[in-house]
Parts: sequence; C-alpha cells; structure tokens
Amino acid sequence: MSQPLWVGVDVGGTKVLAGVVDADGRVRRTARRATPGRRVDVRRVEDAIAQAVAEVAAGEPLAGVGLAAAGFVDADRARVRFAPHLPWRGEDVRARMTDRLGVEVKLENDANAAAWAEHRFGAGRGVDDLLMITMGTGIGGGIVSDGRLTRGRNGMAGEFGHMMVVPDGQPCDCGGRGCWEQYASGGALVRAAQHRFGQQPSLLEDLCHGDPALISGPMVTAAAEEGDLLAREAFAEVGRWLGVGLANVVAALDPACVVVGGGVSAAGNRLLDPARTALEHSLVAAGHRELPPVVAAALGPEAGLIGAVDLARP
Amino acid sequence: MSQPLWVGVDVGGTKVLAGVVDADGRVRRTARRATPGRRVDVRRVEDAIAQAVAEVAAGEPLAGVGLAAAGFVDADRARVRFAPHLPWRGEDVRARMTDRLGVEVKLENDANAAAWAEHRFGAGRGVDDLLMITMGTGIGGGIVSDGRLTRGRNGMAGEFGHMMVVPDGQPCDCGGRGCWEQYASGGALVRAAQHRFGQQPSLLEDLCHGDPALISGPMVTAAAEEGDLLAREAFAEVGRWLGVGLANVVAALDPACVVVGGGVSAAGNRLLDPARTALEHSLVAAGHRELPPVVAAALGPEAGLIGAVDLARP
Repeated sequence: MSQPLWVGVDVGGTKVLAGVVDADGRVRRTARRATPGRRVDVRRVEDAIAQAVAEVAAGEPLAGVGLAAAGFVDADRARVRFAPHLPWRGEDVRARMTDRLGVEVKLENDANAAAWAEHRFGAGRGVDDLLMITMGTGIGGGIVSDGRLTRGRNGMAGEFGHMMVVPDGQPCDCGGRGCWEQYASGGALVRAAQHRFGQQPSLLEDLCHGDPALISGPMVTAAAEEGDLLAREAFAEVGRWLGVGLANVVAALDPACVVVGGGVSAAGNRLLDPARTALEHSLVAAGHRELPPVVAAALGPEAGLIGAVDLARP
Repeated sequence: MSQPLWVGVDVGGTKVLAGVVDADGRVRRTARRATPGRRVDVRRVEDAIAQAVAEVAAGEPLAGVGLAAAGFVDADRARVRFAPHLPWRGEDVRARMTDRLGVEVKLENDANAAAWAEHRFGAGRGVDDLLMITMGTGIGGGIVSDGRLTRGRNGMAGEFGHMMVVPDGQPCDCGGRGCWEQYASGGALVRAAQHRFGQQPSLLEDLCHGDPALISGPMVTAAAEEGDLLAREAFAEVGRWLGVGLANVVAALDPACVVVGGGVSAAGNRLLDPARTALEHSLVAAGHRELPPVVAAALGPEAGLIGAVDLARP
C-alpha cells in the first residue's frame, strides 16, 4: 500500500502546475492546466486546481496540499487578498480548497514558496539568511531570515520589484515611477534591446522579423548566446540594474546568499556577472563585510510548488 | 539584600551611557563618560565603559551587562568588526569586557538594540513585525521580524542609511552617491536649511549669527517650533525623503509598524506627517494593504542600553 501523497500547486497568471513532491523536495510527476483568467468566477480557477491535483494524484490518496499563489496571501495564510492576474479578491482560498479537495490545504505566496524551496533543497540549501529574487515579467522575491520565512504583516514581505531606484523614472503599472522592475526584469531586458535596435546590426532583426515590437525575452537570450553584441549589451544593462537594486536589499537585510531565479536568470553569468560587479560597487562597507554570493536558482519553475509542499508539511 | 543589577551600556561616538535597567525596561539611574575617540587604544574606550558601569552599579553586585555599540557587531555578537567612530577593529569585545567586569557581557549593534527596546517596551510594544529608523547625523535602523531581531550574516541587517534613493546623487562618506541618509537625516536637515538660507527671512539668521555654516539640527528644530517658514520647509523636505525611502523598506519587509527615533525625530509630526504622505504616495499596492503607522520612538536616547540589557538577559 502506497504512502499518501503530498501535492504542491503553483497557481500563476498563465498556468496551474501541480506536482507530487517527495520529502526531500524531488518532484515525481507533474500535471498542468491553463489559468482561466483574472475576470472569471473564482470557481473556474479552483476547478483548474482541482483537476490538476486529481490528474497528478492519479487515484492515490492525498496527505496534504500546498498551494503557491501569485498574489498577496494574508499573514494567516488563508486568504488571497489581491492577485493582479487571478480572480481572488479576499476569498478564504484555504478553506474553500480544503473543502473541495477533502484534505488539508496550506497557502503561500509563490515567490515566498520559491525562496523557501531554494533554501531547503536548492541553490541556497543550508543557508539560513537568504534572499531570493525572481526575475520574470517583473521582479518578485522572498526572504529567509535565521532559517524562517519572513512574511510581514500583510504577507507582502519580499515584494522588491516596486522599490524605487530612480526618482521620477520609468512609469510602472503599479502607478509609481522608477520601480526596480522597470530596470531589471524580462520587460526591462526587452526594452533595453528595443532601445538599441537599428543602431547596430543584430541577430534580433531576423528573430523579430524586423519589427522590434515583437522582441521577446527568450529572443534576447538566444541572440546573446549566439554572441550578438546588442543582446549582450542589453543583458549587461539589466544585470547592472539588478546589482544596483540588490545593493539596497543587501544593505537592509545582510543576507548570506542571494539566489536569482525566474525566466531571465536562464542567461546565467551573462546576467549575474554585471550584477555582482554593480553590487560590490554600490554596497556600503563592502570592504568590511563578506559579500553574499549571487547565484542562479537551482529548482527552476517547480520551485514554487516544492516550497509550498514543504511549508505545508507538519 | 538587594538583587544583582542588570546594566546596559550604549557606546556611541561621543559618549558612553550606562544605566541600571529593571526587568520591565525602566532605567533606574544612569552614568556617562565621554568616548575617548576613534584613534586611541581600545583599552581607553574599555576603561570608560568600566568606569561608567562601576559608577552606576555603586558597589551593588552585577547580574549581567548588555553592551550596545555603534558599529558592526558580528553574527556571534562577540566582536565589533568595524565602527566608524570607535577604535575597535575586530576585537573580541565580549570576551575582553566579560573578563574585565567579572560578569557575563553580551553585545549588540546599537540600532538593533534600540529597535528591540521599542518592540519590547516602547512605541512598538507588542508589535512582532517592526521596523525602526534612527535619524541622527545619519540613518541607522533595526528590524524585528516575527518577534525576533533580524541580524543578518554580518550583523549588518537594518543598515538602511546607505540604500540608494538617487542614482548619481549627493556624494556620501561611505564612498557611494545618493544614499538615503544624504536626504533624510540631521545632516540633510541642516543642508536643506542652508540651501534656503538668505532666500527668505528666517529666525535662523539670528540663531546662527548670520553664518549659515553654523546652522545645527537643534537650531532648525527650534526655529520650526517658533513657526519659522524656512525651517518648516526644511523639515517638510527631509520628511518627504524619509517617506520615499520608507516606501522602499516597507515594500521589502511589510512591517506592521515603523518607529522613528534619533535626534531629528524630536520634531514629531513636523517630520512624520510629510513622511506618512510620501510613504502612502510611493508604496506599491497601498490600496491593497494596511499601511504601517509611522510613529515617534518612545524611549529616547536610553533605547539602546534598555534593548542591550533585554537581549542580554537569559
């Protein structure tokens, strides 16, 4: 007779990814569904979660479910207060899904869950003071301090993306200006490439069929890998801004390790080397402290569901 | 027969302040010595500490001593790695002072100790997620997260003063540019007043005898209290920058309360009102979260020694 399964689910703006996770953080199998959207009835998102969990469980009994959601999860880890790409607006998701799945469900912000996973099983394994930065369309993040996840009063700790790095700088979707994620994110990488487009020859001309509006982050990554100068300059610029913002967060929190994940981090040292240089240049008292290593995340897009399960276990 | 005493000592750049502290954080009596300087033998600073402790103990037996030092204290709370205004450079201060005083000594960074004191006995009493900002010549700070002090790997967590708020902005003593404390501190207050001096009539003309180089923070506070417009504008400017920087720290840490202490905070709401406005204006998702109250510290210059004692108690 098999052990009951622990299942993690990462509920993002585009997809719902469920996985069976071992006690050592390994993902045995996964199932995915498209996220129905942000303007639909919340039950449609919860249907997608239930379907993905049922598929991945394949009839075996469940021990518990950890849910990582791309939104603000309250300090009790019961409700999603707000999620820009999901329909929840204060619903008690933990109670609703516990009821629906017939097993205890625990909730966590997705970036917090990913940070926890990297601390427990990934690039920051065994490091008790760790910062994770997730660079996707924007910047997310999570803080592990003294071996514990820092959640904050509204469950919003680690939302580094909207720290201001340039007064009156680039307008941001949040309504502010000069937010860090306007300078160091997948969106910023694309803008940095578009800004240079046409000023020098580039492989991107073919990749985007001559229309800079069609440039995507993966295109810039691919061009940079082929040695394209324009694409490499775009990475150097975004990496430098990553380091400038990191200096602020490191000054505030003094972590022993910085883990960088998210789609943009696939570029590895092309992104991280300029970030390390800028961090060392910008950080106060850099000569009187051990600088934290800046390393690429190890667990990829499954980090969120791995962390959600580990946080849900008793 | 009297109970053995707990003594706290705050070792700052100008003075050494020792106090007998009750279990409920009340200071029964204090003694002070001038700090001998940063270029002297470390024994002279340790002499001043021992003298202040002996005076305040007045022959009664000691239970333990908590030392708050204006410097970077390592994660083991034994050594002062570096202190800009004190001579310690890596000495094992805890061992040296334990040996010298014949009773167990524990060490903490002064801003961390003050944050802990405000959390335990002061303006943030009972609040488990708290941020303290100390506005003196520069900006210091401390973080209490989930009821525990956040120290970081090098004991440097909470050093918010050198977070950059303006790229390529005002040069700072730290070697960087645009550091927060260049815009929101006692030094910034004086510069804001000097910058306006002569452009409009002001009580400061008399207070500084016509020489703007002699303007001090307390002068600006006194003039503002008398209704002086120039001085009030200087506070509004510094308060606005306080709020702008706070928005960054609050975005990262999501505290339930922000306590502002240090000399500049004596101005109360003249400083804090513009800070609150700027915080609300600058903070991401301000409409989807409870904004932390921004309150004046309650324990004054004794916060450091009160916190050091509380952290030293078993």
